[in-house]
Amino acid sequence: MSAFELDERLARDTELVSTLGLCQLRILKDSRWPWLMLVPQRNGKTEIFDLKPLDQALLTFETNMVGTALKTVTGATKINIGALGNIVRQLHVHVIARSEGDPNWPGPIWGFGQAVPYEQPRQDEFIHQLLEALSS
Amino acid sequence: MSAFELDERLARDTELVSTLGLCQLRILKDSRWPWLMLVPQRNGKTEIFDLKPLDQALLTFETNMVGTALKTVTGATKINIGALGNIVRQLHVHVIARSEGDPNWPGPIWGFGQAVPYEQPRQDEFIHQLLEALSS
Repeated sequence: MSAFELDERLARDTELVSTLGLCQLRILKDSRWPWLMLVPQRNGKTEIFDLKPLDQALLTFETNMVGTALKTVTGATKINIGALGNIVRQLHVHVIARSEGDPNWPGPIWGFGQAVPYEQPRQDEFIHQLLEALSS
Repeated sequence: MSAFELDERLARDTELVSTLGLCQLRILKDSRWPWLMLVPQRNGKTEIFDLKPLDQALLTFETNMVGTALKTVTGATKINIGALGNIVRQLHVHVIARSEGDPNWPGPIWGFGQAVPYEQPRQDEFIHQLLEALSS
C-alpha cells in the first residue's frame, strides 16, 4: 500500500487539524464559516461508493462525530454536509456550521465570494475547542 | 411509533420513486439535473447524527446504493451528495448527477435559478432506468 497523497489544491486551501482512523480532519483557510473537511486516506478514490464497505462505515462514523462536535462548539443552526468534488476529484467531505444570517444563508457556501483568512488566535481557539469536543 | 410525516415543501418539490428500508427515494421536479433525494422515514430528525447508529448505517448504505445506480444510469462525471437542510429542516439527503457543462457546473445546484419541470415521458424513462439499475 503506497503512502497517502493529498491533492495539491486541498493541501493549499486547508490545514491539518488531526488524523482520525480513516480520514484527515482539516480546516478550510476561510473564517467566514466554521468549515471542516474530512479526507479519507485512500488514494485514487473519487466517490464515497468507491470506498470499501468498511471504509464507507468509518467515513459515516467520523463525519457524524465531527458534525456533532462542530455543532456543540459553534451552537450552529444547521450542519451542512456535502461531498461534491466537481473541481477537486480526490474524495473529500465538507462539514460546515451554518447559522442564520451567515454569508449566503440559507444558500450553499460553495462557490460563494472569496475566502477570508483567519486571524491566527481565532483559528487556534476554534481548533482547541473542536479537539476538546471531539475527545469528550 | 407514529406514522412518518413528510415535510410539506419536500412533498411539493418532489415525487415518490420507491420506498427503501429506511428512506423514501424521491425525485426532484426539476429536469435540469438528474436529482434524487433520500428522506429517512423518521419523524423529528434534522441532522444525520440525530439518527440512531443503525439508521446512520442504513442511510449510508442506501445513499451509496442510489449514488451508484445514478452514476450507472447517467454516466455522470461526478455524483454530488449533500445534506444541507438550511431551508427545510426535516432530514433529507440530495443525490445529484453532475456532468461537465450542466447548469452552474462546477458550482453547486442548490439555490441556482428556477426549476424546469420534466416532460412526463422523460421522467418515466429516467425512473424506469433507475429502478432497473437499483434492482440489478
